[in-house]
Amino acid sequence: MNKPTAVVVGVGAEQGLGAATCRRFAKEGHHVLVAGRTAAKIERVASTIVAAGGSAEPVVIDATSEADVAQLFDRAMVPGNGLEPTDLVVFNAGNNQRIDFRELSAQAFEDFWRVGCYAGFLVGREAARRLAPFGRGTVIFTGASGSMRGKPGFAHFAAAKAGLRMIAQSMAREFGPQGLHVAHVVIDGGINGHRLLSRAPGLLTQRGEDGLLGIEAIAETYWHIHRQGRSAWAHEVDLRPFKEPF
Amino acid sequence: MNKPTAVVVGVGAEQGLGAATCRRFAKEGHHVLVAGRTAAKIERVASTIVAAGGSAEPVVIDATSEADVAQLFDRAMVPGNGLEPTDLVVFNAGNNQRIDFRELSAQAFEDFWRVGCYAGFLVGREAARRLAPFGRGTVIFTGASGSMRGKPGFAHFAAAKAGLRMIAQSMAREFGPQGLHVAHVVIDGGINGHRLLSRAPGLLTQRGEDGLLGIEAIAETYWHIHRQGRSAWAHEVDLRPFKEPF
Amino acid sequence: MNKPTAVVVGVGAEQGLGAATCRRFAKEGHHVLVAGRTAAKIERVASTIVAAGGSAEPVVIDATSEADVAQLFDRAMVPGNGLEPTDLVVFNAGNNQRIDFRELSAQAFEDFWRVGCYAGFLVGREAARRLAPFGRGTVIFTGASGSMRGKPGFAHFAAAKAGLRMIAQSMAREFGPQGLHVAHVVIDGGINGHRLLSRAPGLLTQRGEDGLLGIEAIAETYWHIHRQGRSAWAHEVDLRPFKEPF
Amino acid sequence: MNKPTAVVVGVGAEQGLGAATCRRFAKEGHHVLVAGRTAAKIERVASTIVAAGGSAEPVVIDATSEADVAQLFDRAMVPGNGLEPTDLVVFNAGNNQRIDFRELSAQAFEDFWRVGCYAGFLVGREAARRLAPFGRGTVIFTGASGSMRGKPGFAHFAAAKAGLRMIAQSMAREFGPQGLHVAHVVIDGGINGHRLLSRAPGLLTQRGEDGLLGIEAIAETYWHIHRQGRSAWAHEVDLRPFKEPF
Repeated sequence: MNKPTAVVVGVGAEQGLGAATCRRFAKEGHHVLVAGRTAAKIERVASTIVAAGGSAEPVVIDATSEADVAQLFDRAMVPGNGLEPTDLVVFNAGNNQRIDFRELSAQAFEDFWRVGCYAGFLVGREAARRLAPFGRGTVIFTGASGSMRGKPGFAHFAAAKAGLRMIAQSMAREFGPQGLHVAHVVIDGGINGHRLLSRAPGLLTQRGEDGLLGIEAIAETYWHIHRQGRSAWAHEVDLRPFKEPF
Repeated sequence: MNKPTAVVVGVGAEQGLGAATCRRFAKEGHHVLVAGRTAAKIERVASTIVAAGGSAEPVVIDATSEADVAQLFDRAMVPGNGLEPTDLVVFNAGNNQRIDFRELSAQAFEDFWRVGCYAGFLVGREAARRLAPFGRGTVIFTGASGSMRGKPGFAHFAAAKAGLRMIAQSMAREFGPQGLHVAHVVIDGGINGHRLLSRAPGLLTQRGEDGLLGIEAIAETYWHIHRQGRSAWAHEVDLRPFKEPF
Repeated sequence: MNKPTAVVVGVGAEQGLGAATCRRFAKEGHHVLVAGRTAAKIERVASTIVAAGGSAEPVVIDATSEADVAQLFDRAMVPGNGLEPTDLVVFNAGNNQRIDFRELSAQAFEDFWRVGCYAGFLVGREAARRLAPFGRGTVIFTGASGSMRGKPGFAHFAAAKAGLRMIAQSMAREFGPQGLHVAHVVIDGGINGHRLLSRAPGLLTQRGEDGLLGIEAIAETYWHIHRQGRSAWAHEVDLRPFKEPF
Repeated sequence: MNKPTAVVVGVGAEQGLGAATCRRFAKEGHHVLVAGRTAAKIERVASTIVAAGGSAEPVVIDATSEADVAQLFDRAMVPGNGLEPTDLVVFNAGNNQRIDFRELSAQAFEDFWRVGCYAGFLVGREAARRLAPFGRGTVIFTGASGSMRGKPGFAHFAAAKAGLRMIAQSMAREFGPQGLHVAHVVIDGGINGHRLLSRAPGLLTQRGEDGLLGIEAIAETYWHIHRQGRSAWAHEVDLRPFKEPF
């Protein structure tokens, strides 16, 4: 049997959710297309996987570019070398930052949407176009508590994330019956990864053991979602650290 | 006492929600800035109000233009002629159309967002900047069932509307305690107005009396929201015709 | 034209939501059946209404008694003396109290449900049986933030209130198309009334002006809901003081 | 290392969700307390597990009896014979049936609540009392689409299920930070089990392969929830067959 292929969009530092997801899928035997903006970062993620005996290749893309996303899927669907067309896609791009609403520039509002929602649409649409005809496959969108609630200082983030959630819902209702599993995972809380810790170095100590979301633990649930039998698919799952108030 | 001023953004045909909202506010003694894209349409809405003894003026704007929105609020906050700065803003822009997800162009996805969500951000931000310092006023955003759920063929619409809802929530949580009442009205069902009936002329007969949302009835609830005492403000209200399944 | 009749279930002190609702309906010309557990309290509410020129009568009931609720509706549907059968019903019964979950007795859990949910079912069912055949009328259920979320120390309250919300939803979906307007009002925050202030006398000062929900302001929205045209009915409305975090 | 112990409340026929959950936990090395109303049924479930090399014992209980639930946990916490106190509890009791709202008897409304909600409270409270002090463990409540929405003919069911959901939420918010994982699984759709198929024998053929929820597939996700690391716990997961409209 040929090796299956997975695509993870929005990969950055090794200590990030995207990278952990790539490693998890590789460990299960997938060849992984490690897609992200920064060549050095994704090359490192891919080479770590290969060094551990897995299979991966970096693909530099701007996820807000229609052409880049199309090319990524061209590659993912005809991966060559005894690889199967991709059956597993994760959209993980997006930023977060508190910005005072009255100071929020129109450009910033648009930028957050373009990375967090528009790019998700591009990836979702390609996945629907390419995977649905096979009648199988999984597409997972990474959400946040902002997907469900708008809070002061986060209008731009929540507007993008809530939009992404609606894309996931619309896709699930249309393509689920065609055999494509579309899921939306609400990540509620701080992720114990490079992005957060470089901004708030003391946070890890402050929150204590398991007080931040573990990237491997999240990736574990992503893999579980992919493995679910189609007679009992999850569409929406919320994940948070045990201490997180909600 | 000076006459109060209201702003309604997204006004089109006389038989539309925007126009009915303008008439309702004018009837209660507000001077109304009738803001929309098409000069002929908003001039007609304004002149009907004036002919009925009310006070209104048309303001041609592209609600997706930051400069246009700023100028509208410049006018609304210094209306002159014995008029008070605006204390009532309605954002009512937005389109709807079913488009197959796999055929949905990136441009169309963006266009729906720009009118339905980005323009709402521009209006919301100006309202927050200008009204919050007064510690009073009302901002109402017009939502839809797509604000809450993504359905096949409506990913673009739902992504825009859910984003708009998050803007409204973020604003309400921040500016409510400062005295600015921010509300989001979920309009669920077809509106008995020019837009829908020009596309589906037989729909009115098919649905029967009161089977479509009445524009005056919706405007009545908008007025009620503005009149609510701050000790019991509504943030979210859903409105649908009595027959509408939900 | 005959005078219309309203029924308010769960009336207590004059400075309570039930009493304010009775006064609001009476002011609009309804004869009000003031239904509650304590004769002295509801007699006082009714006599205040009559003293102000309105029309009201106290009806002592245990809202958790099927027979009592049936008799209340017998009276409400054949009120005599030039009165119309009731077209407006409010269910307002219910208690709230923080109880540690591990200390929560089975009896307490049941008691909260019986008053907050089971009694609501009895009232809702009678209203459906009696009003739906007329193809008109309004039934309003008083909810709370606990209707939507379960918090530590409030499992018993939330379980009752969430159940009541489901009764309202089920009724709205079934009887709305038959002309019966069923609404659920989520009261979020402390009510500036006798019950809360007798427990926490300093709260009013602490919260400041309009920092608690005004009972007259809530009653105003209840009246608005009853007056909505059936082409644009609200099913769910949330009400909170302007300062309330949510 | 000693063998861990699990408790599943609401077990009936072998081709039911409760039984499948028991088998799944036994397969992973848990000793399972198979708790249900009908001795013959749960004995069969337990003996099938034992025959397959697993460890299980039937416990006849009425889950609506406080004493029975307490005794079940007495047994579960001191299981003897080299067994660990239970670290995994599933509440799976509950019925469903369409009943016309106006014909719904007060007794039927109460009965649905007692099995679907009150029994869940009893189990949840005992679990909180007994497991939380250990700072570890998992409690899973089985929900339904009625947990989220009230539909015509299902007021009684939805009122019970929505109440159960609030218990799960209240518990999660309180006991999660203490190390007890509380989850609520929304089962949306018909379960391919004995109960449904005995009522609607043709349904399986009509829905086609995987058109009903597979009991083993659901149990797989229950097991995944128990295995999640506490740095990324799910509280709410929805499961439905790929074809199910939602």
